[in-house]
Amino acid sequence: MTDVVSLYINDGLSEEEIARQAALYGPLAEDIRGLIPLGIASQADDDEVRRAREHLAAAAEILGRRRDPGPYGTRFNDSGNFRSWGNAAVGLRNAVAPPLKVHTEPDGRVWADFHLHLGYEGPAGHVHGGVSALVLDQVLGDAARVGRSPGMTGTLTLRYRRPTPLGDLHAEAKIDRVEGRKAFVVGHIAGPDGICVEAEGVFIAPQWIADARAKVESQD
Amino acid sequence: MTDVVSLYINDGLSEEEIARQAALYGPLAEDIRGLIPLGIASQADDDEVRRAREHLAAAAEILGRRRDPGPYGTRFNDSGNFRSWGNAAVGLRNAVAPPLKVHTEPDGRVWADFHLHLGYEGPAGHVHGGVSALVLDQVLGDAARVGRSPGMTGTLTLRYRRPTPLGDLHAEAKIDRVEGRKAFVVGHIAGPDGICVEAEGVFIAPQWIADARAKVESQD
Repeated sequence: MTDVVSLYINDGLSEEEIARQAALYGPLAEDIRGLIPLGIASQADDDEVRRAREHLAAAAEILGRRRDPGPYGTRFNDSGNFRSWGNAAVGLRNAVAPPLKVHTEPDGRVWADFHLHLGYEGPAGHVHGGVSALVLDQVLGDAARVGRSPGMTGTLTLRYRRPTPLGDLHAEAKIDRVEGRKAFVVGHIAGPDGICVEAEGVFIAPQWIADARAKVESQD
Repeated sequence: MTDVVSLYINDGLSEEEIARQAALYGPLAEDIRGLIPLGIASQADDDEVRRAREHLAAAAEILGRRRDPGPYGTRFNDSGNFRSWGNAAVGLRNAVAPPLKVHTEPDGRVWADFHLHLGYEGPAGHVHGGVSALVLDQVLGDAARVGRSPGMTGTLTLRYRRPTPLGDLHAEAKIDRVEGRKAFVVGHIAGPDGICVEAEGVFIAPQWIADARAKVESQD
């Protein structure tokens, strides 16, 4: 089993270096993200697919020459600039992620306006119920974190009120209450016709987060 | 709002043509899927990223010349060969999907052995809770379908028992009971150390599926 603590690291990068990497690798992920709908919708013929695949192989060869050996993990620096660039919902470098950009209000509410392309389909023409769950798990977990009760998902309950259309959507969440290491969070996804999916989640702070936080704080 | 019925269509393709498209577009999606971890983990420098992005742009230009205007939807033929090739969990043409290959047992149990690469990360080194939800929503929904109670997700409840490691995993589900248009389904994801996530779902057959099914049956 992967050692989670070793993937939750202070890599000491400067703000300048973080900005450089974001400007370099963010657009790369955006290009890969843009290929996903084309992989589904293209009507390219045999010869065109062959030539496209030659380009993809050439890109993969270049990108694979030097690479991190494992997952991105969670990285941070002494300024408390946290990066989860491999995260499946919000990761700047992750083409699986829409990616969500989660905003925080002074009252602790978090929200994101986002776009789901045709690669997030489940029922014909609509968002996969599990993709809605991915968005809500992230946004509810972020609400817990913003409320200073970060944790991993303990339970998540989703109620699908109506089919969620692909395209432009809104998600939001807020902490309902906190009990010890548990944060109880509620939220929803809304489309043009109103709320599509409602969620309730319990987020539990695991010991290794508590330990890592203590370690960071001891470096202050 | 997208018209779901128009994306649930009998396109009359022959088995031969379906096989040809699978052999052409499946490997293309596999190539795009393989780029996702590289987008996260590559340590390529500025010049390498520039050259890789030129190849990605060339591929996108070729693939985008002729394309379906919208989502893939659900397509089928007179033989009842259903294709959800754009599906975010199982889609043959979808690089977001692991993809799951869901097997059916004679007793109605469904299962999938699958691999989650580093693009499915949430907590450092582990599977995003929402990705586990994506897998379980799909497998539970498939169990409902296999049990002749297909439907869209009504509610889904997930209990996260332990962190789910990235890598090789197993998921399974079975119908607990059916009441009218509702199928109650249970399932889980297991890793090398046992069950990581448990799920319960209620899947509800919407009217348009009932209508579409009646239409198909009237063509027999």
